[in-house]
Amino acid sequence: MHTEELLLVTIVAEAIVEHRLVRDVAAAGARGWTVVDARGQGSRGVRADEFEGSNIRLETLVTPQVADRILEVLARDYFPRYAVVAWSTAANVVRPEKYA
Amino acid sequence: MHTEELLLVTIVAEAIVEHRLVRDVAAAGARGWTVVDARGQGSRGVRADEFEGSNIRLETLVTPQVADRILEVLARDYFPRYAVVAWSTAANVVRPEKYA
Amino acid sequence: MHTEELLLVTIVAEAIVEHRLVRDVAAAGARGWTVVDARGQGSRGVRADEFEGSNIRLETLVTPQVADRILEVLARDYFPRYAVVAWSTAANVVRPEKYA
Repeated sequence: MHTEELLLVTIVAEAIVEHRLVRDVAAAGARGWTVVDARGQGSRGVRADEFEGSNIRLETLVTPQVADRILEVLARDYFPRYAVVAWSTAANVVRPEKYA
Repeated sequence: MHTEELLLVTIVAEAIVEHRLVRDVAAAGARGWTVVDARGQGSRGVRADEFEGSNIRLETLVTPQVADRILEVLARDYFPRYAVVAWSTAANVVRPEKYA
Repeated sequence: MHTEELLLVTIVAEAIVEHRLVRDVAAAGARGWTVVDARGQGSRGVRADEFEGSNIRLETLVTPQVADRILEVLARDYFPRYAVVAWSTAANVVRPEKYA
């Protein structure tokens, strides 16, 4: 089975930003994404504002270059304003030609 | 804490295939699985048909051998017909004897 | 983009333990967590009792030390009593100062 290593970028954010976040992830070069409804609690930067409530969890399989662009957009446009958590993990993907 | 490295195989597919997919994942040797409802968008192979709508996200912790069998079934029976994305990541599992 | 490697600990459990599990994960040192509703099937230890039904899937980004504490609590208080599956994966986190 031919697989290729890509990055799985996962973003947890307030539900209110879903539409905008999907648009920005696509604009950064992601070819697909999966969103699930979630709930949770986190801290918001150094102010440690707690948030609890309706969240979304978005994940997308991307190249390292696209992952960097997504994280740059998050850092510039989301982190100062929204409660957002983002991480990436290495993933071996079947049919990787879909994500180039 | 004793842990063992296994593969976490994640499959995102149209909701309509859930019952069949669970059956096939079990037949391939998976001992357990978790399914969540999802939504999203992706491209379908080289035709790049876009799909958006009701999806499921299934994940299962398996040995590399079982992972290969799952991916072979996906490649043979699902990829030609359905919008399916699949990837695997390395996972350190507590109580790995459950997944042998 | 500054990232740091942490552990993403994922726990799948019966929905009935959500409140208690969140409390215990926080007490072990986790600074945030995300919960989604799930369904699935698994085996319960060596007795291999099957369970199928309403589950939750909790994930939390933590240091290795906190991950160990979480897994110890699971082994001591949950595994003997509940159908619980837990695993960890390496994750590169943006803004890791939130999880120290």
